Amino acid sequence: MKKIINDPQDVVAEMVDGMVRAYPQLVKKIPETFAMIRSDQASMKDKVGIVSGGGSGHEPTHAGFVGKGMLSAAVAGQVFTSPTPDQIYAAIKAVNTGKGVFLVIKNYSGDVMNFDMAKDMAEMDDIPVKSIVVDDDIAVENSLYTQGKRGVAGTVLMHKVLGAAADQGASLDDLEQLAQQVLPHINTIAVALSAATVPEVGKPGFELAEDEIEYGVGIHSEPGYRREKIKPSKELVAELVAKLDNSLQLSKDKKYAILVNGMGATPLMEQYIFTHDVLNKLAEKSIEPTFVKVGNYMTSLDMAGISLTIFELADEKWLDYLNYPVETIAW
Amino acid sequence: MKKIINDPQDVVAEMVDGMVRAYPQLVKKIPETFAMIRSDQASMKDKVGIVSGGGSGHEPTHAGFVGKGMLSAAVAGQVFTSPTPDQIYAAIKAVNTGKGVFLVIKNYSGDVMNFDMAKDMAEMDDIPVKSIVVDDDIAVENSLYTQGKRGVAGTVLMHKVLGAAADQGASLDDLEQLAQQVLPHINTIAVALSAATVPEVGKPGFELAEDEIEYGVGIHSEPGYRREKIKPSKELVAELVAKLDNSLQLSKDKKYAILVNGMGATPLMEQYIFTHDVLNKLAEKSIEPTFVKVGNYMTSLDMAGISLTIFELADEKWLDYLNYPVETIAW
Repeated sequence: MKKIINDPQDVVAEMVDGMVRAYPQLVKKIPETFAMIRSDQASMKDKVGIVSGGGSGHEPTHAGFVGKGMLSAAVAGQVFTSPTPDQIYAAIKAVNTGKGVFLVIKNYSGDVMNFDMAKDMAEMDDIPVKSIVVDDDIAVENSLYTQGKRGVAGTVLMHKVLGAAADQGASLDDLEQLAQQVLPHINTIAVALSAATVPEVGKPGFELAEDEIEYGVGIHSEPGYRREKIKPSKELVAELVAKLDNSLQLSKDKKYAILVNGMGATPLMEQYIFTHDVLNKLAEKSIEPTFVKVGNYMTSLDMAGISLTIFELADEKWLDYLNYPVETIAW
Repeated sequence: MKKIINDPQDVVAEMVDGMVRAYPQLVKKIPETFAMIRSDQASMKDKVGIVSGGGSGHEPTHAGFVGKGMLSAAVAGQVFTSPTPDQIYAAIKAVNTGKGVFLVIKNYSGDVMNFDMAKDMAEMDDIPVKSIVVDDDIAVENSLYTQGKRGVAGTVLMHKVLGAAADQGASLDDLEQLAQQVLPHINTIAVALSAATVPEVGKPGFELAEDEIEYGVGIHSEPGYRREKIKPSKELVAELVAKLDNSLQLSKDKKYAILVNGMGATPLMEQYIFTHDVLNKLAEKSIEPTFVKVGNYMTSLDMAGISLTIFELADEKWLDYLNYPVETIAW
């Protein structure tokens, strides 16, 4: 393992400190936690807070999306490990303006359990809390750490939509309804060229041969659905788009947003080539997405790979939400 | 070589098309070239155009910085290869509003030569052109492809400063003076954990042992000044900051901006840990930077590594320029 770190046990603490000290104008840490809230939280009056979080190792998710127009707080767990309920609860408490708090949870058993416990703690303190569990990864049903489908890169689009709506004054009930409406329209699938190495483990989560890739891998090195020799980008794209087509029933009469997401070690050059192939493949169906975003948003440490998210914009307001201006480190 | 590409010969063409099709609201391609200009170029009236460019493989540099408040155009060459003079000239011509064009050139022999030729072509057409050659890398004097010092990540800060000044109405002469004043105050140094693999070459530019790093490497796998076993981040930082201190004479009575730049395959987690160590090391000298930015800005394909740029803000206007709002893909 060759990493720019100090003691593997300190990676999250040092990362969180690095982040809040680099961007004090945007994020601050709740003392004694790895929870980060907006530096301008005081200006949030009368708005519903939005809290997300999860294991570390997916940067810039989640703290990179804390700021005006997006998340109110992000809670970081240890690497690939859910944050603890008390820290999630500390974040809920810190961002509640009296209008309640909405939680965005990626579908991993540990996250679902700990966010639920935090919700119970908040409710005992009379803070109204609602939540959505994002399960956008269509690759497999059930997985190493998940019942049902996994929550992956599409979560960032959920953050964006809900953050914009909350900033425009949506109530807790509005946000719950919006999240439930949006959820089935966000679908993601990934391909991996190599696995992530968790610092405390010191070796990759799985091994692929020099010329091999794996389809449908998760963001914690969970298995996908097939391994085979690497193919040209346009052939990878054909398979991934076919899967998404199967699940979303792509149609030229609908509008779509696209998120091409690098997993951490995949250069932007490759991400743009892949994007080019995605746009060509969709053009064959006479689909031209109305919103495209390309970059490292939901990573898996040093994993090489890429994911494709297609978000069917079933309501035209959703596009406005995607385009709504934000002040964050990473959107 | 395992990459998400099609034919290695097509990587730049497909990347450029992917980029302009993903972000048509920000960048458009000059037909038959790999030059990208602002989609709102028509709104640039009375302002000096700023053109940069260079070999591909450093994404999001340069096209990721085209947009309001930053670059007017970016010209992409083949991977790690200078763009041709005719394409640079096409960009100059496209962004000239009558007020002239300023070129930002990284110090590589090929770039310097081709940008100079383009400048000559423009002058024959009576387009006033001035330029700066950025040579911020303090690691070594002269290098594989460079006379003098290399131009690396600090170039992005030069783009930012000049772009802000141009947007506020600076003349061509103003920009030349500003660039010359700023240049010696931007210093960079890097460390590599692995080398980049150029698609058409198919193997890494150099080999490092599993536990080895190289100090002072360039962004095209040019040699640095020492190889040794990897150390904890804080020890790497101590060496890099000492080198920058030696060159910039760091002082608690001055103001600084910091750019921590990932080389392509280094996770943000490591970049933030490194940032944390940089801020601690500077704090030992009672220095707290007034501007910090962390992420992948000047990459070297899939190289693992990191660079540290320190920019002494000798004029308080320079901080305003760094904070000036922009509309780009990647700043």
